[in-house]
Amino acid sequence: MSILVVGSVAFDTVSTPAGSVTEALGGSATHCSVSASFFSPVRLVAIVGEDFTQAHRKPLLDRKVDISGLVTAPGRTFRWTGAYGDDLNSARTLDTQLNVFADFRPDVPQAWRDTPLLFLANIDPDLQWDVLQQVHGAKLVAADTMNYWIEGKPDALKKLLGRVDILLINDGEIRQLTGEKNLVRAVDVVRGLGPKTIVVKRGEHGVLVFEGHNTFALPAFPLASVKDPTGAGDAFAGGFLGSLAARGLDGDRDVRRAAVLGSVMASYQVEDFSHDRLMRLTDPEIRDRYARFQELTRFSPLS
Amino acid sequence: MSILVVGSVAFDTVSTPAGSVTEALGGSATHCSVSASFFSPVRLVAIVGEDFTQAHRKPLLDRKVDISGLVTAPGRTFRWTGAYGDDLNSARTLDTQLNVFADFRPDVPQAWRDTPLLFLANIDPDLQWDVLQQVHGAKLVAADTMNYWIEGKPDALKKLLGRVDILLINDGEIRQLTGEKNLVRAVDVVRGLGPKTIVVKRGEHGVLVFEGHNTFALPAFPLASVKDPTGAGDAFAGGFLGSLAARGLDGDRDVRRAAVLGSVMASYQVEDFSHDRLMRLTDPEIRDRYARFQELTRFSPLS
Repeated sequence: MSILVVGSVAFDTVSTPAGSVTEALGGSATHCSVSASFFSPVRLVAIVGEDFTQAHRKPLLDRKVDISGLVTAPGRTFRWTGAYGDDLNSARTLDTQLNVFADFRPDVPQAWRDTPLLFLANIDPDLQWDVLQQVHGAKLVAADTMNYWIEGKPDALKKLLGRVDILLINDGEIRQLTGEKNLVRAVDVVRGLGPKTIVVKRGEHGVLVFEGHNTFALPAFPLASVKDPTGAGDAFAGGFLGSLAARGLDGDRDVRRAAVLGSVMASYQVEDFSHDRLMRLTDPEIRDRYARFQELTRFSPLS
Repeated sequence: MSILVVGSVAFDTVSTPAGSVTEALGGSATHCSVSASFFSPVRLVAIVGEDFTQAHRKPLLDRKVDISGLVTAPGRTFRWTGAYGDDLNSARTLDTQLNVFADFRPDVPQAWRDTPLLFLANIDPDLQWDVLQQVHGAKLVAADTMNYWIEGKPDALKKLLGRVDILLINDGEIRQLTGEKNLVRAVDVVRGLGPKTIVVKRGEHGVLVFEGHNTFALPAFPLASVKDPTGAGDAFAGGFLGSLAARGLDGDRDVRRAAVLGSVMASYQVEDFSHDRLMRLTDPEIRDRYARFQELTRFSPLS
């Protein structure tokens, strides 16, 4: 089945201990769409400015992402400038220019309003709600958010969560959202707000997935070199949701496989700047790293 | 086979968000020995003061730990006072009174000098070296350390590592020891110093075990309630090394099982203050949580 991604498309200027890039293609919707495209057809709804050229569209088209929902507005594309120090777990934001993104009012193409899997990437929860109303045919709704909205629009966010099936959130954010320091209890609180499946992203420490009485924990893939962590969470979301869109969500087994595929995509994402690694990624490489995750985590029963 | 543990026995005064204890039995050697005793015979070498009563010895004796190497010296037992805030990953030390521990010169009983598995828990690396010379019959040498020795005695520590088979260390410490921020590269540096097996403890994020070309990653067990993290690393070491002592170290499979058993013991350790949870722990509970670790981490191959 198809997946509809609504989020940001941006130009990122990023420096890390491994180097830097200037105005590289970025944004949550970009990284998520590129990642998801390895698994299922992807429809992208986002906004860019007049400086977004055909060359910028090319990687998305190369990955066969349907960008009919990518609107060009008068003005400049969203820009973000950030830097990572030795602690690659958190970026320091140096500059944010919302530009056309400040007036983003997503208008989902009529033909897409029955897309079975809807992913509300990290944008204003009021806009996420608005998109949710439009995509009334969605069978499965997933959402991401960030500290900025948890602080600024907690009520809009909580209202949204009442309609969300799968929440993707990082560990610091779920603690902030719930006021609970203990992750297990924080997840219980979020479950009470609506989402049946809660995916807690922990950066270099991996991911925890809570679904009903099932808990799945997966470490991150240990890499000797991380060039740029930007978009790791979005690449995870793309692999996770793309896998669910492709293979369905019949139970625990599907969620676990999706979480491993999300982690595979995140582990490749950080190997290079922007979407560079995913643009040259192959299906055999995805299968290879999936197998290496099995090797990384396997152990025998107690005899 | 037996395991010989050399380390500290202390009275801990600890406060956490879940409560507090005053002068409870603590110390690296205590927690490690109690934990290891579920798997193999344990011999303890440590020092206490005249205030260490028969009642304090009882839990060790109840767990059948051989305390013939526990020396009583004139003066008071080592005392540590610490507090944990909402971040249960790190304690704030409020007071340290070394007392008799300041003059600890371990003298391993003659009959114990061929103990096959020697664990040098976290003490002065010069003393660890000294014990290593005494236990010349050891087939397998494991060691732990801490930031205090990495800063204060880096050369003594590096000399020791040349004779250590298994190093247990936490993620912050291995970065400090090697000056490498990337864990995989930090492990490569440590491997160059001597240890063939490197266990990186990551607190609530679990554990990474590097052995030859094999890497094993295990998340920590998600607990809804953590009362007191004190001794989690020592309980891990006890389960890990106790399991190796009991079942041998023939390869990757043994190391992985040992790391899961170490994590099982650490997960129980933090459920109550001091050694309280381990003192009432049963073998079926150990097996049960091992099975729950399998359930937590399992996923299917890609079809």
